[in-house]
Amino acid sequence: MKFICEKEKLLLGLNSVTRSSIGRTTTPILEGIHLQLKNKKLTLTTNDLEVGMEYRIEDVDIRDEGEAVVDSRMFSEIIRKLPNKEIIVSLNENNILLIECEGSKYKLSTMNANEFTLLPNISVDKSISIPQKVLKDMIKRTAFAVSTDENRPIFTGCLFDVTGSLLNIVAVDGFRLAQRVAPVFTEQKEFKAIVPGKYLSEVAKNLLDVDELVKIGISKNQALFEINDCKIVTRLLEGDFLDYGNVIPKEKETRIKIDKSNLQDAIERAAIFSISSSEKEKKYPIKIYINVDCIVVSCTSQAGDAKEEVAVEMEGKELEIGFNPKYLLDALKAIEDDEVYLDFGSNISPCVIRSTAEDKYTYMVLPVRLKE
Amino acid sequence: MKFICEKEKLLLGLNSVTRSSIGRTTTPILEGIHLQLKNKKLTLTTNDLEVGMEYRIEDVDIRDEGEAVVDSRMFSEIIRKLPNKEIIVSLNENNILLIECEGSKYKLSTMNANEFTLLPNISVDKSISIPQKVLKDMIKRTAFAVSTDENRPIFTGCLFDVTGSLLNIVAVDGFRLAQRVAPVFTEQKEFKAIVPGKYLSEVAKNLLDVDELVKIGISKNQALFEINDCKIVTRLLEGDFLDYGNVIPKEKETRIKIDKSNLQDAIERAAIFSISSSEKEKKYPIKIYINVDCIVVSCTSQAGDAKEEVAVEMEGKELEIGFNPKYLLDALKAIEDDEVYLDFGSNISPCVIRSTAEDKYTYMVLPVRLKE
Repeated sequence: MKFICEKEKLLLGLNSVTRSSIGRTTTPILEGIHLQLKNKKLTLTTNDLEVGMEYRIEDVDIRDEGEAVVDSRMFSEIIRKLPNKEIIVSLNENNILLIECEGSKYKLSTMNANEFTLLPNISVDKSISIPQKVLKDMIKRTAFAVSTDENRPIFTGCLFDVTGSLLNIVAVDGFRLAQRVAPVFTEQKEFKAIVPGKYLSEVAKNLLDVDELVKIGISKNQALFEINDCKIVTRLLEGDFLDYGNVIPKEKETRIKIDKSNLQDAIERAAIFSISSSEKEKKYPIKIYINVDCIVVSCTSQAGDAKEEVAVEMEGKELEIGFNPKYLLDALKAIEDDEVYLDFGSNISPCVIRSTAEDKYTYMVLPVRLKE
Repeated sequence: MKFICEKEKLLLGLNSVTRSSIGRTTTPILEGIHLQLKNKKLTLTTNDLEVGMEYRIEDVDIRDEGEAVVDSRMFSEIIRKLPNKEIIVSLNENNILLIECEGSKYKLSTMNANEFTLLPNISVDKSISIPQKVLKDMIKRTAFAVSTDENRPIFTGCLFDVTGSLLNIVAVDGFRLAQRVAPVFTEQKEFKAIVPGKYLSEVAKNLLDVDELVKIGISKNQALFEINDCKIVTRLLEGDFLDYGNVIPKEKETRIKIDKSNLQDAIERAAIFSISSSEKEKKYPIKIYINVDCIVVSCTSQAGDAKEEVAVEMEGKELEIGFNPKYLLDALKAIEDDEVYLDFGSNISPCVIRSTAEDKYTYMVLPVRLKE
C-alpha cells in the first residue's frame, strides 16, 4: 500500500471522519482509522459500531493498492502537524505504516485490517433529500434540546418525522421541546426515525452553507447520511417518541412580541443571580412579569437582586411566571430573527417561543413554580 | 455614596484589579472589592492579603463620597454584561449597593467596609524603574519556569536580582532555569527580592507594550508595582535563592545554530509519541542526535516512532542526548528570534539555549538519561 497526497486534502478527510470527542473504548480497533486504496480512490473510514464515517478522496497519487488500520488520533495528529506539503504514506514489509514528508519520517504500528468493520451496505427503504444548509440549520436549532438522561434513551435522540413533503425535526428532554420544519424531496408519504442527538453533531460538522442536497436513507435500524464525498451511518433509537403535535398548546391567553437581543441580554444579566456562589447546589429561577407595554425580568438570591425592564407589544392578560433561565437562553441563542413571539397560557402552563419572521421554529418550555 | 461612570471606564478598572483565577476562600471579605469615592477619585481595591491591587479612576461624576465592599465576582459580572452606557452606582440607607443602567436595576448586599484591608503604605527602601514593555517581556520569558512544588516555596518565585544598573529575573524549578536581563534605572547598587511567580501574571496583565516606566519598590517583605493608575502589592518570599550565576555552564563541547521554528515544529511533532495514549502514566523522552550539518530529533514509544531531520550549523563534537520535550518547547515558545544557539557539554550535562540576536536571554535545561 502506498500513496502520495497533499497534506490539506488528507487533513480535510481526517477532520470529516474523526470524532471531536472520541469516547475511549477498551477495544483499540474501534478507535482505528481504516485506509483503503482501491479503484483509484483513497477511502478513510472510522467505525465504533455506534456511528461510522467514510470519506473518499479521488485525486490521490496511488502507487500500490492495499489497506491498513492505525490509531486514528495518532495518525490525525501527525498529519495535522506536518508542513503543508506532499505526504507519502506506505505500508512496509513488517506491517508498519510509514509517513514521510520532507525531513520527517514517522512509523505507526498497524492493527489487523480484517478485524475492522467497514460501513455496512444499508438496504434503504425510505429516503429524503434536503439542502445541506437547511439540514445544518435544523440540527443547530433542535439537537441542543435532547435529553442526556440515559434512563429514557429514546429522548436522547432527535425525531425525524416526514409527513407529505415536510420534515419535522423534534427534540425533547422533559422540560422543553424544540421543533423545526422544512420542505424535503421524498417519495414516501409518511415515516418516522429517531437519530441519536450526539451523532447529529458529526453530521452537522460535515454540512456546508450550500444548496447542494444531502441524501438521508433510512433502513429498519440505521440511518445513512450522504454528503458529497462523505457517508455517515448511525444506528436508530427504537421506541415511541412523544406525540409532539398534541403537546404544544394551540391556545394562548397572553402573547408578547419582543426584540430578541434585548430579551436575551436581560435574561443573561438577571441570571447572574440565578446561580448562587455561596450555595453551590441552589439555583434560583428568574421571574417574568408581563405588563401592558413592558415585561420585568427579575431574579432574587441571597447575594442581591436583579430587575430588568424590556419594552414589548402585548396582547391578552397580565401574567407572572417563573423559568429556569438556561432553557430560555438556549432557545433565544438558536433563533436568528430580530423579534420573537412568546405565547403563554397560565403561570403553570408552558411558554411557546416562535420566530416572527417565519413559522418554521417552535420552542416550548415548562415554567418553574414560584415561591410566594 | 453615589457615582456615575461610563461602563467601559469602570470595566477597565475592574479587569485590572480582579484576579483571573480567584482562589475561593472561606472568608468572603477577601473576595470583596472595595469601592471608595474620595478626593474626586473612584478607587477600586481587591486584597486577599497575598496580593493586593488598587486602580484609580479620575474622571468620575461623584455625587456623594463614601465607600462600600461587595463581592468582586458578582459586581464585575454585572458591569461586564451591562450595555455600553453610563452606569449609576449608589449605596442606599439599608447598605445595599444599587447599580442602575437604562432599564436594568441591580441590588447587591454589601460587606462591612471596616473589615476590608486596604493596600498598606509600604516603606520602600529600594526601588527600580523599567519600561513597561521590557518588564512584560521579561516576565513572559521567565515566569513560566517557576516551580509549582509548595514543598520548596522559594522556587515558586522569580528572583529579581539588581546588580549595577542591570536587572536579572530568574526562575528555576529543578529541571530548568530561565534568565532574562535588562538595564534599569536605580539608585541602589545591589539587591535581591523574590516575587511569587503566580502574582507576576497579575502584574503582566497590567503592562502595555509601551516605553512608559513601571516603578518597583521593595520593602523588607513586600514588593510594590506602580503602573499608571494601578498599584499592585505582593508579599515577598524569604530564603536563599539558587546561586544561578554558578549553575549555568560557561564551557561548551558542542554548539549548534538552528532555525527556531524548524526546531520547534520538529520537537512538537516528535512529541506526539512522547505521551502514550495506551500507557497513561508513561512519558517517553525525545532523543536529539547532533551531527555535522543536521540534527535528528526522534521519539520511540509502543505506538511507533518519529524521526525528524533539521539542518544546523554545528561546532564541536557529535552528541546524543535525551530531553523531556515540554521543557524545550516552553523555552522555544518564549523566544522570538529567528535563530537560536544550543550549547551542550556531555549527554549528562545541561543544555543552554540562547537567542542569537541578543545576549539577554538564557534558558538551561537538564537532560534525561536515555536507556540503551
